[in-house]
Amino acid sequence: MYGAGDVRIENVPDPTLQEPTDAVVRVLLSCICGSDLWPYGSRPPSEHGGRMGHEFLGVVEDTGSDVSNVTRGDLVVAPFVWADNTCDFCTEGLQTSCRHGGQWGRDTDGGQGEAVRVPQAQGTLVKLPAAEDSALMPSLLTLSDVFCTGHHAAVTAGVSPHTTVTVIGDGAVGLCAVLAAKRLGAERILLAGRHKDRTDLGREFGATDVIAERGDEGIERVRELTGGDGTHTVLECVGTRQAIEMAIGVARDGGVIGRVGAAQYTEVPMDFGTVMRNITLTGGVAPARAYIEDLMPDILDGKIQPGRVFDRTVTLEDVPDGYRAMASREALKVLIHL
Amino acid sequence: MYGAGDVRIENVPDPTLQEPTDAVVRVLLSCICGSDLWPYGSRPPSEHGGRMGHEFLGVVEDTGSDVSNVTRGDLVVAPFVWADNTCDFCTEGLQTSCRHGGQWGRDTDGGQGEAVRVPQAQGTLVKLPAAEDSALMPSLLTLSDVFCTGHHAAVTAGVSPHTTVTVIGDGAVGLCAVLAAKRLGAERILLAGRHKDRTDLGREFGATDVIAERGDEGIERVRELTGGDGTHTVLECVGTRQAIEMAIGVARDGGVIGRVGAAQYTEVPMDFGTVMRNITLTGGVAPARAYIEDLMPDILDGKIQPGRVFDRTVTLEDVPDGYRAMASREALKVLIHL
Repeated sequence: MYGAGDVRIENVPDPTLQEPTDAVVRVLLSCICGSDLWPYGSRPPSEHGGRMGHEFLGVVEDTGSDVSNVTRGDLVVAPFVWADNTCDFCTEGLQTSCRHGGQWGRDTDGGQGEAVRVPQAQGTLVKLPAAEDSALMPSLLTLSDVFCTGHHAAVTAGVSPHTTVTVIGDGAVGLCAVLAAKRLGAERILLAGRHKDRTDLGREFGATDVIAERGDEGIERVRELTGGDGTHTVLECVGTRQAIEMAIGVARDGGVIGRVGAAQYTEVPMDFGTVMRNITLTGGVAPARAYIEDLMPDILDGKIQPGRVFDRTVTLEDVPDGYRAMASREALKVLIHL
Repeated sequence: MYGAGDVRIENVPDPTLQEPTDAVVRVLLSCICGSDLWPYGSRPPSEHGGRMGHEFLGVVEDTGSDVSNVTRGDLVVAPFVWADNTCDFCTEGLQTSCRHGGQWGRDTDGGQGEAVRVPQAQGTLVKLPAAEDSALMPSLLTLSDVFCTGHHAAVTAGVSPHTTVTVIGDGAVGLCAVLAAKRLGAERILLAGRHKDRTDLGREFGATDVIAERGDEGIERVRELTGGDGTHTVLECVGTRQAIEMAIGVARDGGVIGRVGAAQYTEVPMDFGTVMRNITLTGGVAPARAYIEDLMPDILDGKIQPGRVFDRTVTLEDVPDGYRAMASREALKVLIHL
């Protein structure tokens, strides 16, 4: 990406092992993230451009001498932050703060490409017990980010069979958050979103009510539907100030907001009234690595199909058009078939 | 209180039972709260004035027909928000959001007076198994607010033997938060405060380090003392924007801030970096009622002495001077002996 709206496909050197902890993965599937749309909308032009993509699934081509859990030919998925999975943060399940971790596309290749050098491969890569041509592949790819992110919102907010839930946002993360909340036993899931084709999928994923209103009207609607109280948990899956405001407004006293939207704000409204109501703001960028093994069985068993968020598939040369389609909301989430 | 700096002692009608759920309590001990200093500093002048005081302990004088758990002559303590203790919020331990609760001094008498009508007395009042002249009385009074508030910060932040703690603020709440954190098993407690007599008491309560620096320097000092990481839990006991900023700055990645300072801010800084670090902001106005029975035994056994935060005692006529002394930081917390 060379700047806002300027995505180019270019030839770069093939990745090779640089450290004994590296692996090289040939990418089979990647995708475009809602968070990629922020730079796509606003990044200043640059001469050198930056590698893009942080969600991928592929086949191991080569491994360094310190990598023993995956080997050439293995089908693997990578979480959207690489991590050693052994440091104290990783052990606590916060691989996004790994002491030896990092983000794709900065010091490494991006996931939206044919191959990637994977640092800390032993900790980062997770083997997938599936065939390359399995119909489950798109759903397994969501373990790299989007489904784990929705799950993180639900887990940190404390969703359970005893909690009502509002999900803010009908993007791919919001829909995955609905699915995650349903999976955790929530019976009442209110989905705030205005795109009928998306909220329809949200209903199939488990949403019981759809809130099309925004702002104060949206807050009022949620309160109407919950006897005036709001919901115990709120999963904020947008990242704008407006979404955070709505999240606080619809949270029941003592409620918990799991925020996973990539924050485009620098301040959040938090006054005495919110403090009086004991509202908790938690969540953050999801440590997907912490959840992959837990969530994979339900995908392999066909219990959940988070891959349904992909409504368009492009090849490598059409990635720029994929960005355009997602940014214009023509597509919900774009799968890249390498 | 008729406005900033204008506290008067006046004769008002004796309280009487108005509802079958009421009790009347003759006050023995009350006190001035740090939160009373906000209106004392800034309340616009008014013709009618407002009743003050929300922390008290006394003897039951009369009870309505629906009150069966306390009776005339019982020594009782009241939490700083009255509550029925039976509604869904109360059952969840959030008595500050009771569906039939309220705050002292609004629709009732204030606690800084000779007697108080107590609404929802069955749910609100807790019997104290102590004699009126017991040396434990000041510590038992802290169950009405200040010790429970410090405890709420520690509980919501998840303080345990496995967590490091920063306490922000060396006021009475901050010192009680230190004591509460110590009681919950924390071994490393950093206290941010600049008043040596107060931080000395903090050390006696369990603080292992004192941070006298403020702002960025304070954050840097905490990070120096914690290998660069910050602490797992942060107990924000001031209520200013500056205190919240410091709290976020000293929180370890994945850390939890229990905020109990009466919020004087309307926005809190929360950018992508904070979201990346998965910082949780929780706590709020403490449901003291939820904690009284749990904390009382340790006071009765002499294990903890939160009443040591009182460093001055006044009689009713000297309450205005008590406000002055607390506002000027001449006194840490003022006990009122009725």
